Amino acid sequence: MEQVVKAIQDDYPDDFAWCYGCGRLNKDGHHFRTGWDGEKTITIYTPKPEHIAIPGFVYGGLLASLIDCHGTGSAAIALHHKNGHEIGDEAQPPRFVTGSLNVSFQKPTPHGVPLKAIGTVHEIHPKKWKVEAEVYANDVLVATGEVIAVLAPKTFTEKQ
Amino acid sequence: MEQVVKAIQDDYPDDFAWCYGCGRLNKDGHHFRTGWDGEKTITIYTPKPEHIAIPGFVYGGLLASLIDCHGTGSAAIALHHKNGHEIGDEAQPPRFVTGSLNVSFQKPTPHGVPLKAIGTVHEIHPKKWKVEAEVYANDVLVATGEVIAVLAPKTFTEKQ
Repeated sequence: MEQVVKAIQDDYPDDFAWCYGCGRLNKDGHHFRTGWDGEKTITIYTPKPEHIAIPGFVYGGLLASLIDCHGTGSAAIALHHKNGHEIGDEAQPPRFVTGSLNVSFQKPTPHGVPLKAIGTVHEIHPKKWKVEAEVYANDVLVATGEVIAVLAPKTFTEKQ
Repeated sequence: MEQVVKAIQDDYPDDFAWCYGCGRLNKDGHHFRTGWDGEKTITIYTPKPEHIAIPGFVYGGLLASLIDCHGTGSAAIALHHKNGHEIGDEAQPPRFVTGSLNVSFQKPTPHGVPLKAIGTVHEIHPKKWKVEAEVYANDVLVATGEVIAVLAPKTFTEKQ
């Protein structure tokens, strides 16, 4: 199965690696992982058996969650790149939070196959990025979305 | 703690009670329950320990999921009412799917307290309803959202 080899979430500092969607340290979470796919970004995830709307079809809230973390991860990759860094180098990547999240469900999403979220990242402002996302199941477009990702304020990232 | 006594999800037929967000038969799901709150609708949910963005704050994807199911549940309540029925009577309620979901995160959402989603329902068309949602934590508005809910097509609700 296709996998994301280098993911930005692998580089988040431990204190910010607890997100239920994409935190590698949250043992009950989804562990979404986002990397480059050419000039776009990609997150691949296979929903668990319980992630259904009705039997056979994926729960919309899971798609929304995928787009959410794909958005913040994509913005982090893009700003990190702009700052002269790449995933996996020694530098600590920036951490974004979600300002807004829009999802349009295009088709019922079949359960049991990997979902691929593909992102196109636009800089609105150094601290505010827009990520357009397309989610595919079996190469069929099942959902589109947009995330406005905002650089986490220092109060958020500083040690409590 | 305040609770929703009569919830529309309690009346969904068994075949459509498997949703990860609001299906009473999905043992691993959130079990969101939506009822009337005067002329508005309400869903109350206390996030689980793992539903965090960073320690102490609720994961945005969980808020999106809450608004999603609150939206489809609210639309079901409203159309059921328009059809002359109420939650808990013998009639089977209509079942909606999400066409689109928009969420704006207003403030970091504290973890460990019940979240209340309050809905205002607007009929666009008998088969298409708009639900405006406000989510409160400790009576502070933490997120707003909008769901376009579409009556589930017969192909969706018919026995496979």
